[in-house]
Amino acid sequence: MGEKKKLAIVGATGYTGQELTRILAVHPSARISIMTSRQNTGEAYADLFPSFKGYDLPTLTQYDPARLRSVDLAFFCLPHAESMEAVGKAHDLGVKAVDLSADFRLRVKKVYEKWYGPHSRGDLLKKAVYGLPELYREKIKKAQLVANPGCYPTGVILGVAPLLSAGVAGPGRIIADMKSGVSGAGRKGTLALSFCEVNEAFRAYNLYAHRHGPEMEQELSAALGKKASVTFSPHLAPMNRGILGTIYLALTKKLSSSALREVLAEAYLDEPFVRVLPVGDLPCVSRVRGTNFVDLAVTASPDGKEAIVVTAIDNLVKGASGAAVQNMNLMLGLPETEGLLSPPLRP
Amino acid sequence: MGEKKKLAIVGATGYTGQELTRILAVHPSARISIMTSRQNTGEAYADLFPSFKGYDLPTLTQYDPARLRSVDLAFFCLPHAESMEAVGKAHDLGVKAVDLSADFRLRVKKVYEKWYGPHSRGDLLKKAVYGLPELYREKIKKAQLVANPGCYPTGVILGVAPLLSAGVAGPGRIIADMKSGVSGAGRKGTLALSFCEVNEAFRAYNLYAHRHGPEMEQELSAALGKKASVTFSPHLAPMNRGILGTIYLALTKKLSSSALREVLAEAYLDEPFVRVLPVGDLPCVSRVRGTNFVDLAVTASPDGKEAIVVTAIDNLVKGASGAAVQNMNLMLGLPETEGLLSPPLRP
Amino acid sequence: MGEKKKLAIVGATGYTGQELTRILAVHPSARISIMTSRQNTGEAYADLFPSFKGYDLPTLTQYDPARLRSVDLAFFCLPHAESMEAVGKAHDLGVKAVDLSADFRLRVKKVYEKWYGPHSRGDLLKKAVYGLPELYREKIKKAQLVANPGCYPTGVILGVAPLLSAGVAGPGRIIADMKSGVSGAGRKGTLALSFCEVNEAFRAYNLYAHRHGPEMEQELSAALGKKASVTFSPHLAPMNRGILGTIYLALTKKLSSSALREVLAEAYLDEPFVRVLPVGDLPCVSRVRGTNFVDLAVTASPDGKEAIVVTAIDNLVKGASGAAVQNMNLMLGLPETEGLLSPPLRP
Amino acid sequence: MGEKKKLAIVGATGYTGQELTRILAVHPSARISIMTSRQNTGEAYADLFPSFKGYDLPTLTQYDPARLRSVDLAFFCLPHAESMEAVGKAHDLGVKAVDLSADFRLRVKKVYEKWYGPHSRGDLLKKAVYGLPELYREKIKKAQLVANPGCYPTGVILGVAPLLSAGVAGPGRIIADMKSGVSGAGRKGTLALSFCEVNEAFRAYNLYAHRHGPEMEQELSAALGKKASVTFSPHLAPMNRGILGTIYLALTKKLSSSALREVLAEAYLDEPFVRVLPVGDLPCVSRVRGTNFVDLAVTASPDGKEAIVVTAIDNLVKGASGAAVQNMNLMLGLPETEGLLSPPLRP
Repeated sequence: MGEKKKLAIVGATGYTGQELTRILAVHPSARISIMTSRQNTGEAYADLFPSFKGYDLPTLTQYDPARLRSVDLAFFCLPHAESMEAVGKAHDLGVKAVDLSADFRLRVKKVYEKWYGPHSRGDLLKKAVYGLPELYREKIKKAQLVANPGCYPTGVILGVAPLLSAGVAGPGRIIADMKSGVSGAGRKGTLALSFCEVNEAFRAYNLYAHRHGPEMEQELSAALGKKASVTFSPHLAPMNRGILGTIYLALTKKLSSSALREVLAEAYLDEPFVRVLPVGDLPCVSRVRGTNFVDLAVTASPDGKEAIVVTAIDNLVKGASGAAVQNMNLMLGLPETEGLLSPPLRP
Repeated sequence: MGEKKKLAIVGATGYTGQELTRILAVHPSARISIMTSRQNTGEAYADLFPSFKGYDLPTLTQYDPARLRSVDLAFFCLPHAESMEAVGKAHDLGVKAVDLSADFRLRVKKVYEKWYGPHSRGDLLKKAVYGLPELYREKIKKAQLVANPGCYPTGVILGVAPLLSAGVAGPGRIIADMKSGVSGAGRKGTLALSFCEVNEAFRAYNLYAHRHGPEMEQELSAALGKKASVTFSPHLAPMNRGILGTIYLALTKKLSSSALREVLAEAYLDEPFVRVLPVGDLPCVSRVRGTNFVDLAVTASPDGKEAIVVTAIDNLVKGASGAAVQNMNLMLGLPETEGLLSPPLRP
Repeated sequence: MGEKKKLAIVGATGYTGQELTRILAVHPSARISIMTSRQNTGEAYADLFPSFKGYDLPTLTQYDPARLRSVDLAFFCLPHAESMEAVGKAHDLGVKAVDLSADFRLRVKKVYEKWYGPHSRGDLLKKAVYGLPELYREKIKKAQLVANPGCYPTGVILGVAPLLSAGVAGPGRIIADMKSGVSGAGRKGTLALSFCEVNEAFRAYNLYAHRHGPEMEQELSAALGKKASVTFSPHLAPMNRGILGTIYLALTKKLSSSALREVLAEAYLDEPFVRVLPVGDLPCVSRVRGTNFVDLAVTASPDGKEAIVVTAIDNLVKGASGAAVQNMNLMLGLPETEGLLSPPLRP
Repeated sequence: MGEKKKLAIVGATGYTGQELTRILAVHPSARISIMTSRQNTGEAYADLFPSFKGYDLPTLTQYDPARLRSVDLAFFCLPHAESMEAVGKAHDLGVKAVDLSADFRLRVKKVYEKWYGPHSRGDLLKKAVYGLPELYREKIKKAQLVANPGCYPTGVILGVAPLLSAGVAGPGRIIADMKSGVSGAGRKGTLALSFCEVNEAFRAYNLYAHRHGPEMEQELSAALGKKASVTFSPHLAPMNRGILGTIYLALTKKLSSSALREVLAEAYLDEPFVRVLPVGDLPCVSRVRGTNFVDLAVTASPDGKEAIVVTAIDNLVKGASGAAVQNMNLMLGLPETEGLLSPPLRP
């Protein structure tokens, strides 16, 4: 067995940084050698996060692009805008990077700037590969910079893209009604995310105004072969993890649930992390908790004119850090599923 | 002050029976004089449900239609099919009744029988009034038999009917993506509803196959003036109470959120329990917990061609027992809001 | 019916302020005429808390002691230290007050200052009456200033005091292992209280260091007739409301559960809000949710040498705002239970 | 690398069976070759538990002791009484076994029969080794039959035994106030465990009457060197997993928290799964979720006469299936921590 690959986590104290640490702490072929944090420099990671007591992890340091030359790959878990600068500097030094922010997901600078504000490293937008291995595996293997997908888009794109590519669905609006656990909002001490405000509550937010919308449209347009129109409604559910997506599609011709399922099953035949459920079963977020799986089901309407795709992912794993490790495995020539095969923690 | 009205609760041990008891135990103008249960006959209600210790409630007895002649009104909280018989016998004796089952909600026998099975009291289907005061107040006042609406339909119909009636929305399918707390499934000891299976979980169920679908279509068709087509997707959320509805509608002409809100606000101007939120705010189930309120908001898409209506109710109150008391108040000539004005229990 | 009593809520935007508003909004004999807030002056209460939309409530104003002369009683829901000043000024103007902070609960200034810091209105410590009607009803009726008990002490004192007074329990340490819902920590946007940190978690905190300890010892010493020694351990449970207390006591002589229950039952015979459960049943916080009840049970050890008292309250009601309204009713000559009799919201 | 060890799970469909499957599905040196179920014979495990879709697991079969001769070790996840028979037969055939039921935990037949009923294999009670590696590692390595400890006793014994052995604590009663997540009650469809009854609820149960009490007394007496007296109070907390224990101990001499911590730290110096927290920090069940860790802290009272030990485990891992795999590793000569080192799933 060769030496373990060395990794950096830039911005290691948010939920995606912690989740990367959780996965990588027992990865057979890689180890974390650099962890950075602006606010907690000098602290031992396990002092800050006692759940990691007993694990051999580096002390938190300030981000220094030059130091990244010593690692095989760096993960960036920074807020958007801040990420583009940090990733950009690392890229200029030749560092392989998986960026978990939104900064390199949108290929068109104008679209990015409409939703997020100015982009200082527009030069990298076309170089970055969208980190969905199910769509871009070969490109990811050769990429220097991978833009890890957003949590909501992951569920929507994987659930729907094969149906659009196959030409069986997609005319008119695609409606993606998405329900997310609270960790999707990040590690924050705000009143709106406090236990008493979220527990025993359920609400929609940011209707027609969530930044993951254009990301869905970009990838679904690619699948459809023309401009796809997505109505995306995010909701906050009283649970820690998980995104359930319920996606409504018009069909191009009358089809049964079985026929539609066949399209998905074939598209994902060799995919290690996509599980297409039998007709009659429906995904549940608890069945993918803590894993990199995406569970999918499709149900045709009785008249066969529309269909509902239901998708379930763990927003912190397949929706963030698990996908990032899957990308890393591909970029470093490791087995794609390595470190990602533990079954769901259920109940 | 006159004497208090006397009431019966037939089938008092399920969640809707308990919720009726909760509301009626402090109703200023009514008191419960009969409570029935097949399984717990002879037991004191507070022995069975110790949360009611200290309240003066009758001992549980077997259902006997003849005894209902002594009450001013009877609530029926029985399973469908069983209810039609029990309600029918009481009706034949001249008893005023609010039926919380599905048995008298659908006006067309054939539709009922397609979804639920044989109906032995089809003669009452046309006499029964659909118990949504916001739509049928005057009829309810004079009714002998009121069919209390289903929990899911209540949220959908109240959110959408005025937009259909006004002719601003409704062509094509109406998509109702509904998220319900677990009490909507009733008081049951099944594995699927056990804490560990539901907590930290979220799932869809019964796609294109839930019995509340035809009820929505019946009432929305009435509002639209022609056959309305509803795609209804129920979901189970890890919380005790509440239904959040996210309803997608095509518009007949380009309209802003404000214009759409105006339609709802005008329709519900004098309604004591409907709260139309300002543009920019969205309902949350915790804001209506324990109350008879329905909170509504409408958001137009940026291109003004479609809209999303979000509705929140407490499934056990406005979605069941609160609506039943509202109907009772109307049927007995009491102030409509009596006993129903406590603010939400939040947090 | 006479005119409604006029009330002020000073510091109306925390959870205890909201809970007072919830109760008083439908109180038959009182209405809120002043609500204050430092941060939200000028805002309508229902704009800040949309769950109150539809209720007639005053606009938030700055606290001004002079204005309190127009009300019959003022509730103070301010942080400790801040409260002593505000309450003191109102007291000097002759205003009746219920203080929900800790500032006037401890009778001995030195004890207060050891746990909380300097006390500027030590002159009022002896005048203030400890607001537990079950112990001090007659004094409360005549009081100008009532110190509303802490949430943890309420459960402990009511569960144990009669056993100490009767001389059947109490030698040695009393161990109070208390489990509280999250609203007990107040309305705050801190990371430690964020949903993802609290949900699916359970922890102890502030062992031997919680400020409610001396309050318990003060009142239990009074019951015991000599210095009582209490080991008090607070815990945070993943639920919005409720405190369950498990209290371990040595007995002075061998006694059965029935005999101990009899002591409690007799002590609370005429108490409207204390429910002593039958032997074999144990309290559950959900059975008192949203109510002013305290549920109690006592179980003797098989050898009859020690006993476990279990108590359940809703920390925001009997543990705070409900008790405050009960005190108000007494102070204003209203029926003690008025506005406080709605059954628990369950499930 | 040698061939993987072959394992059987007898009674694979309860929560402990599922949890064994979760852990063993990715164990580097072992694989499951037999899974049994009385009710689901013939079904594929992943059809029954779709969260395991994609894993290579055997079809469920009826239990047949003879077939166990083909495996290196069998886990028994059967109800008590039923287990003694099944384990006994396997033992007679020379099969190595870890029994997760209570049937072989108590060494004295009379004690077992007082709490559980008749024992048909009393001959094995003395041969069985109590499966707590921290106390009995060397015996476990050589055992043919290991009795896996109860979930509650694990937390209590590991938290307290070293203090008793060291002679610094233990005179008088030890009070163990234990709070468990709901999975501890098993995979059951009963009303009492239904979501709406457990969520937003908290209660004590089985005071002075829980079967884990004698198990604690057996092991703590061994540590103390004389009969230990334990008052054990179980509680049900609204969360899926985890047991927090708060244990009250009298000290034999005045000691500080640091001195007490030192006793624990030294006792567990080389233990891979016991984490003794620094003074001032306290365990939280979420920090051990999904892991085999036990987190411990001890706090002395200000007068140094008593102490509170707080312990946290995941009831399904260190409290059941994780401990079982730890025992298996020891019994089969594998590295003790193999397959058990994934960090906590948090949040």
